[in-house]
Amino acid sequence: MPTARPVFFVSDHTGITAEIIGKSLLSQFPDVKFTYTSLPFVDTPDKVELTATSLREAWVTSGLRPLVFSTLTDVRARERIESSGALVLDIYGEFAGPLERELGRTAIPLRGRTHGIDDHTGYHARIDALNYTLATDDGLNTEKYALADLILLGVSRSGKTPVALYLAMQYGLRVANYPLTAETFELPGLPTCLQAHKARLRGLTLRPERLAQIRSERRPNSRYASLETCREELARATALMRAEAIPIIDTTQRSVEEIAALLNLSRQPSKTAGPDQTA
Amino acid sequence: MPTARPVFFVSDHTGITAEIIGKSLLSQFPDVKFTYTSLPFVDTPDKVELTATSLREAWVTSGLRPLVFSTLTDVRARERIESSGALVLDIYGEFAGPLERELGRTAIPLRGRTHGIDDHTGYHARIDALNYTLATDDGLNTEKYALADLILLGVSRSGKTPVALYLAMQYGLRVANYPLTAETFELPGLPTCLQAHKARLRGLTLRPERLAQIRSERRPNSRYASLETCREELARATALMRAEAIPIIDTTQRSVEEIAALLNLSRQPSKTAGPDQTA
Repeated sequence: MPTARPVFFVSDHTGITAEIIGKSLLSQFPDVKFTYTSLPFVDTPDKVELTATSLREAWVTSGLRPLVFSTLTDVRARERIESSGALVLDIYGEFAGPLERELGRTAIPLRGRTHGIDDHTGYHARIDALNYTLATDDGLNTEKYALADLILLGVSRSGKTPVALYLAMQYGLRVANYPLTAETFELPGLPTCLQAHKARLRGLTLRPERLAQIRSERRPNSRYASLETCREELARATALMRAEAIPIIDTTQRSVEEIAALLNLSRQPSKTAGPDQTA
Repeated sequence: MPTARPVFFVSDHTGITAEIIGKSLLSQFPDVKFTYTSLPFVDTPDKVELTATSLREAWVTSGLRPLVFSTLTDVRARERIESSGALVLDIYGEFAGPLERELGRTAIPLRGRTHGIDDHTGYHARIDALNYTLATDDGLNTEKYALADLILLGVSRSGKTPVALYLAMQYGLRVANYPLTAETFELPGLPTCLQAHKARLRGLTLRPERLAQIRSERRPNSRYASLETCREELARATALMRAEAIPIIDTTQRSVEEIAALLNLSRQPSKTAGPDQTA
């Protein structure tokens, strides 16, 4: 078995940006093994020295030159890490030059701008959205629906809550979700609380086999988890949503992030792309 | 008022990576105004053409050369966007070269590796963690605590739920949270359900003035939201957590992301950084 290449995410703040970029880039090398170490809050000369020591140790232990994805903002800290001999991929350093030339001013790399409490990234809006989304989970507080950016519909365990939470955290959207149940299906149309908000309704569906599998993890061998029940509920949900012309996304082969991106896109009629209507 | 510089996040997948990197880099230019457009799922020649058209239109409308943060994986698509004349910051292109040389192989930029359902990013672990975290919110299902990576403690509205959800989504950690209430404070020590898990307990605290403000948004002019109540509950919570030697993080001036990064760090005794014990 080959030794794993040591990879470090080094930052003077949370390190989240460095980690997302680094993992994204390394995913292009699927046959290389990596070990990941996150070193956030490297914000004093002492911690910079300790980071350099960790890099040297990893190099000795693995016999492989470490890769460093850095969002360090302090130039001297960056130079010290580079002097360790590791391959440093410096995210701010690489792109700051072209941006400075284009914008005609000098970059001010203040620490903590990206995942801090500072409101330029809409931090408070995202937290408000998250609180709204939690308060309106699973059909709660339908009287707040006038404030929703989106209202997700789907049968039990169709993935509404994770998608709603992700939309709140990543996009700052207020996303309610409402369960489609046997009671709903007995109504002549949409429940009253949804009727005034049709433009903001979106349906989630998935293949019955996958739903049965998900439900079985929660309640094995139950009627609730049986393929027959899943098939019937999904067919009724799809019929209802089609009758009401509600856009539907099939989540079977999609990650929460992909579903969220499609739903966000569906809010603004775009010229370049749109969610599919697969169901 | 100066015209805002048009910025595009262009991707053949969710575009989340491009957006995080782009906003992070542009935050270094706090006195420039930007307008953001996300163009995810640009995955056909037609959509590439429409993207090029949007760039030209934005240039004409604003009179300013558009900035493009791209994670397009198709070389021809990338070249077409570059031929529009916009300033293209190509995240894969920029770092792929040094990585290829160091790793001695060619990058395989398969679309959707980063925010897809593919398990190299631990997608299923993150979804499992999220489900665990939702199931153990606010003191629910304490019989599942043996499976927790962390258990957060704090008074009502101290920010436990958003932090727990973020830890689950970003770091794939199973994070329960348990409310400290008047009932808890009447016990001689920790509630029984917490005693076996002391190494995984973490406390959240904040300034009483801030807590009173947060609670007032929920229940204005209530005893619950009064500064006196907040002060008393926080003092009791801190006394309990100190007596039990539970690490405490003050959240008053910190974002959810910052708190999460500190808590994640607190799980592995690191040589380079550690959470503070401010309370």
